[in-house]
Amino acid sequence: MDSTKFSKPISLKRIQLDGGFWKPEMELVRKEVIPYQWETLNDRVPEAAPSYCMHNFKVAGRMNKEKRELGSRYQEPTYTFRGFEALPDDPRHPDDDKFYGCVFQDSDFSKWIEAVAYSLTQHPDPELEKIADGAIDIVCAAQLENGYLDTYYIINGMDKMFTNLKDHHELYCFGHLTEGAVAYYQATGKDKLLKAAMRFADFIASYFGTEEGKCKGYPGHEIAEMALVRLYEVTGDEKYKKLAEYFVNQRGTQPYYFDSEGKVTEKEKKTKIRYQYYQAHLPVREQKTAMGHAVRAVYLYSGMADVARLTGDDSLYQTCETLWNNITTKQMYVTGGIGQTHHGEAFTFDYDMPNDTIYAETCASIGLVFFARRMLEMNPDSKYADVMELALHNGVLSGMALDGKSFFYVNPLSVNPRSCHDDPGKQHVKPVRQKWFGCACCPPNLARLISSIGSYAYTENEDTLWVHLYAGGTVEKEVNGQKAQVVITSGLPWDGDVTLKVESEQPVTMTVALRIPGWCGEDFELEGAVGKECRMENGYLYVSGEWKEGDLLKLRFAMKVKVMQADSRVRQDEGKVAIMRGPVVYCLEEADNGQGLPLVRVKPDAVFTEEKTDELGFTMIMLRVDAKTKKPVTVENGLYQTWQKPVYEGKELRFIPYYAWANRGEGEMEVWVNQL
Amino acid sequence: MDSTKFSKPISLKRIQLDGGFWKPEMELVRKEVIPYQWETLNDRVPEAAPSYCMHNFKVAGRMNKEKRELGSRYQEPTYTFRGFEALPDDPRHPDDDKFYGCVFQDSDFSKWIEAVAYSLTQHPDPELEKIADGAIDIVCAAQLENGYLDTYYIINGMDKMFTNLKDHHELYCFGHLTEGAVAYYQATGKDKLLKAAMRFADFIASYFGTEEGKCKGYPGHEIAEMALVRLYEVTGDEKYKKLAEYFVNQRGTQPYYFDSEGKVTEKEKKTKIRYQYYQAHLPVREQKTAMGHAVRAVYLYSGMADVARLTGDDSLYQTCETLWNNITTKQMYVTGGIGQTHHGEAFTFDYDMPNDTIYAETCASIGLVFFARRMLEMNPDSKYADVMELALHNGVLSGMALDGKSFFYVNPLSVNPRSCHDDPGKQHVKPVRQKWFGCACCPPNLARLISSIGSYAYTENEDTLWVHLYAGGTVEKEVNGQKAQVVITSGLPWDGDVTLKVESEQPVTMTVALRIPGWCGEDFELEGAVGKECRMENGYLYVSGEWKEGDLLKLRFAMKVKVMQADSRVRQDEGKVAIMRGPVVYCLEEADNGQGLPLVRVKPDAVFTEEKTDELGFTMIMLRVDAKTKKPVTVENGLYQTWQKPVYEGKELRFIPYYAWANRGEGEMEVWVNQL
Repeated sequence: MDSTKFSKPISLKRIQLDGGFWKPEMELVRKEVIPYQWETLNDRVPEAAPSYCMHNFKVAGRMNKEKRELGSRYQEPTYTFRGFEALPDDPRHPDDDKFYGCVFQDSDFSKWIEAVAYSLTQHPDPELEKIADGAIDIVCAAQLENGYLDTYYIINGMDKMFTNLKDHHELYCFGHLTEGAVAYYQATGKDKLLKAAMRFADFIASYFGTEEGKCKGYPGHEIAEMALVRLYEVTGDEKYKKLAEYFVNQRGTQPYYFDSEGKVTEKEKKTKIRYQYYQAHLPVREQKTAMGHAVRAVYLYSGMADVARLTGDDSLYQTCETLWNNITTKQMYVTGGIGQTHHGEAFTFDYDMPNDTIYAETCASIGLVFFARRMLEMNPDSKYADVMELALHNGVLSGMALDGKSFFYVNPLSVNPRSCHDDPGKQHVKPVRQKWFGCACCPPNLARLISSIGSYAYTENEDTLWVHLYAGGTVEKEVNGQKAQVVITSGLPWDGDVTLKVESEQPVTMTVALRIPGWCGEDFELEGAVGKECRMENGYLYVSGEWKEGDLLKLRFAMKVKVMQADSRVRQDEGKVAIMRGPVVYCLEEADNGQGLPLVRVKPDAVFTEEKTDELGFTMIMLRVDAKTKKPVTVENGLYQTWQKPVYEGKELRFIPYYAWANRGEGEMEVWVNQL
Repeated sequence: MDSTKFSKPISLKRIQLDGGFWKPEMELVRKEVIPYQWETLNDRVPEAAPSYCMHNFKVAGRMNKEKRELGSRYQEPTYTFRGFEALPDDPRHPDDDKFYGCVFQDSDFSKWIEAVAYSLTQHPDPELEKIADGAIDIVCAAQLENGYLDTYYIINGMDKMFTNLKDHHELYCFGHLTEGAVAYYQATGKDKLLKAAMRFADFIASYFGTEEGKCKGYPGHEIAEMALVRLYEVTGDEKYKKLAEYFVNQRGTQPYYFDSEGKVTEKEKKTKIRYQYYQAHLPVREQKTAMGHAVRAVYLYSGMADVARLTGDDSLYQTCETLWNNITTKQMYVTGGIGQTHHGEAFTFDYDMPNDTIYAETCASIGLVFFARRMLEMNPDSKYADVMELALHNGVLSGMALDGKSFFYVNPLSVNPRSCHDDPGKQHVKPVRQKWFGCACCPPNLARLISSIGSYAYTENEDTLWVHLYAGGTVEKEVNGQKAQVVITSGLPWDGDVTLKVESEQPVTMTVALRIPGWCGEDFELEGAVGKECRMENGYLYVSGEWKEGDLLKLRFAMKVKVMQADSRVRQDEGKVAIMRGPVVYCLEEADNGQGLPLVRVKPDAVFTEEKTDELGFTMIMLRVDAKTKKPVTVENGLYQTWQKPVYEGKELRFIPYYAWANRGEGEMEVWVNQL
């Protein structure tokens, strides 16, 4: 770990994205997802599962008000603990004072407010900000005097607070609340929610820790770790850094804290090394392979990377590096999807990449992006940014329909719709996106990531601006008190032309570090760097010198269609190829190619024709190729017959970007296609 | 349905199998499985899950004794109903008066006694018979005065009797008890257990039926239907036939009986057409597709076929035919395995044949054999016998290790051992056979089927002897009071030479119907039929005339290695071939061919060399072929790279019979192999 290489994300207030690939996606989130999400938070969407989120905050708030009115006579209520409340038959607007929904329902608000915050930095909207302020008032009214703020326990009985860290989600809700609060503060300067988060954090810091008498627990679902680091970075309060460190270091130590909660399942009891699902099977520094619930895993690793950066802890950094390498070189789909099985939404094992029973949750790829950015902050190596770009353009974006109105949890690489309906082992795979989910993690996670894409595209240190993703827009860079605007235009991911123009009243001496994407290899051109010093390091081209108004760099990355194959240890992809162009993975859909995709054969050295089209509402490049299809073998009165020489017929195939699949109804889809 | 074509199985007392393929398997059952099974019934096998079966019968018997001693003062106990008793931590010899094990534990005894009965017909064994008689005494002592005999309820509380037909197994236990009782009576002439079964059946007949005041239920797990037909056929009591009819006809009618038990699961409630799992979603005559739990399905269909035969009900027969065709032409593995998913151990849908997430329970293939024999009894069409032979030599026999000491529930067609351990979606697939199971259905089911294989090989009517399987041995045929012995020798399944010699003091006029196996097509020769009338009908060669002492028929079936392919709608087998020779399906194992079986490529027109060997303890033919293997692609620092022209190397492959796989430790296995 070399702290001279450290960089940090650029504040979204200093970035204005204004074109290219990401701006339309951000607009989709702003216009479709954020308003829709607010309606669901308030249970006003007839076709979506109600969230009950705002209802719960209001109920908790009313209980607090009563408490205040009762004054000193008040005693903490000890309601009967009812465990995980089943959703009632859609009461929509329950007017009773019960908690409804999942234990983690509070986080629906927090994810929404975070997306709102990012959106406001790119598109000020007083009306939206007013709604957000009102929501914050409701949320803050629910907070207890001691700082605790989780409506599930406030409503159901505080005597059970922090008694099921393993499976309930108080620290998860805290983490999301904090992320939302920091974002809203950074976007608007308003600190009401930030102060609430700090009070909750203070309470947690007083409750958990290695000191005698303190609880030795840690979150069942990680996120508090990275949230606390954000809180530390915005407040400077060492307590939060220390708490994040504690959560990371305590995790997986012996005796297992989760054992002490008495909620060990029969299955868990049987394993000596248990709690892999929670990444709590070993102390984190002893973990060498990504295991368990994939979202939790990458959230933890992101928090570990944050703590490593803050503390300079090299062993923790090396662990992050080991886990990063395990995921990206042994357990990642070609789309940047991670988590091979829906059993526990989890990793399975190295080189096991089933395409049809896959999980590859949208949130897991989002978490991988979090992890990548944090590794980049410590070590500007393009291997992280390559994966970040890959996940964003494929396994993340596939989670949202092109109209921003429906969503995937699971992002399969092979779909036969009948299996989704009638094979119970594949019913987690949906052939079309769903409107919204009762357990709504993926849609709001997409909203907050896409709205803040600028903070993944660019990082900086004192004199260097790193460009990880060529997201078109303007970035402000200050060096020695001199401000420069760097204006980026980008044709990515469809064409490889990128320009960077400097706008600055006075010359600025700085370095611009340009990522050379892995997918173009060494096949790129740079113009306009005359007089500046250029050097390549770890996949970044560092262009240093004095930049004056109008200085223009032109980059051209070669964008060729690439036919990919998998390592032979991935037995599921044997004999198959996948098509990529730049960072975009392609797929075949029934809508373009008819039924029977397993019968299709692609010649790996065939010539692909590019077709730029807006037909799906966004500019995209489709690919066409002359291929073959096997004449179907129809066995009379049975399933099997003696082999007969196959007959192949010519067939033109049309590939579309993977992220755009399933926008034209239900049908077969394949990423990995049989080769001829 | 043409009752002139009806035939019935030949009593095992008139068959002596004495060589060829099946006798060694029967000896394995006699010497290994039956004694081992008796030990497990008594919880005396340290390495096996205890059965508690005999323990439970003894406890129930003691309770009955107390009852008798109490005399008229006795009141039926109403013990607290404890639901499904969890297995304690292996008490082995519990000395308390509790019921242990699964709700269907009684059937362990019944399956054992049935196998013992068959075995005694082929190998008299006074010592074994004495043990069996003693066990029968214990079992009969547990029967209540009213005839009821299920220890789960006798011990736990008779007030709950027949209150959960859906998921508890009283009528299943009754069915197995009856099958065992009939078999033991037929083998030994002893009727103590038969009478117990009759008393239980009488009680059930008084309890269930369409008449007012009677319970309108039917079994959750079918088998009573076929058991009652057997009981009817041995006793002639119409009541039993009527009860079988009732169970068949009542099933799936509206309103759903299972609804009334109040044990509807949340998932079931959501479906309008529910209880597919139990084949109770529709009245049986409206069922067109095999659905739900595969073992239950084929047990029901077998019972339906029995009832159709007894009652001449053509609509029921046609339903059986429709369901038979659905299974065997749309939902059956090339091995005769059925049940594509472990979720509910069930069928999925037509042409969906996953090889690695497969269930293909040994018992389901056994049930398919039951169903086949019953269809043959009504209609001697070789399509039934072809499937019966296929299932027996592959999907059934693969359930037992070559030493008879370990067993498979699940019979996969593709195995990567790591997946069995670390992919929760494949953990039902075991890479090596298990010693015995707490829920022991497959091993004893294998034992009773293999011990009675003669009754599947041969059926008869007045003047015709049908040979469905060429199992070597002597069959007694009586025509018009004249007895003839037909002595069969058979090289099957390894060579196609079969002889039938008649031994008879006086000439006998009869027909011998010889099945011409589907796998040889028309490629067979017959010698010795001069002077007799020959005609082919539905795959059987009927040879009629007067048979004298020494008359000898010689048959030679061509046995060629066949390279099979699947219908293209089976997407899982696309681009792959399977190897067969006669009825035997072959597979590749890591033990012979090393790791990396997905990299292997077979040329479908390659020449296979046969290699007869005893190396695995039984005579078998292995196959060798010159094939190719793809040089493994190793991607540096990742999983994917741009496609490179594959390099193929020559490789000799060795195929072994599928049923013999997994007898040399853990390793990869593939039935469907990539074609070049």
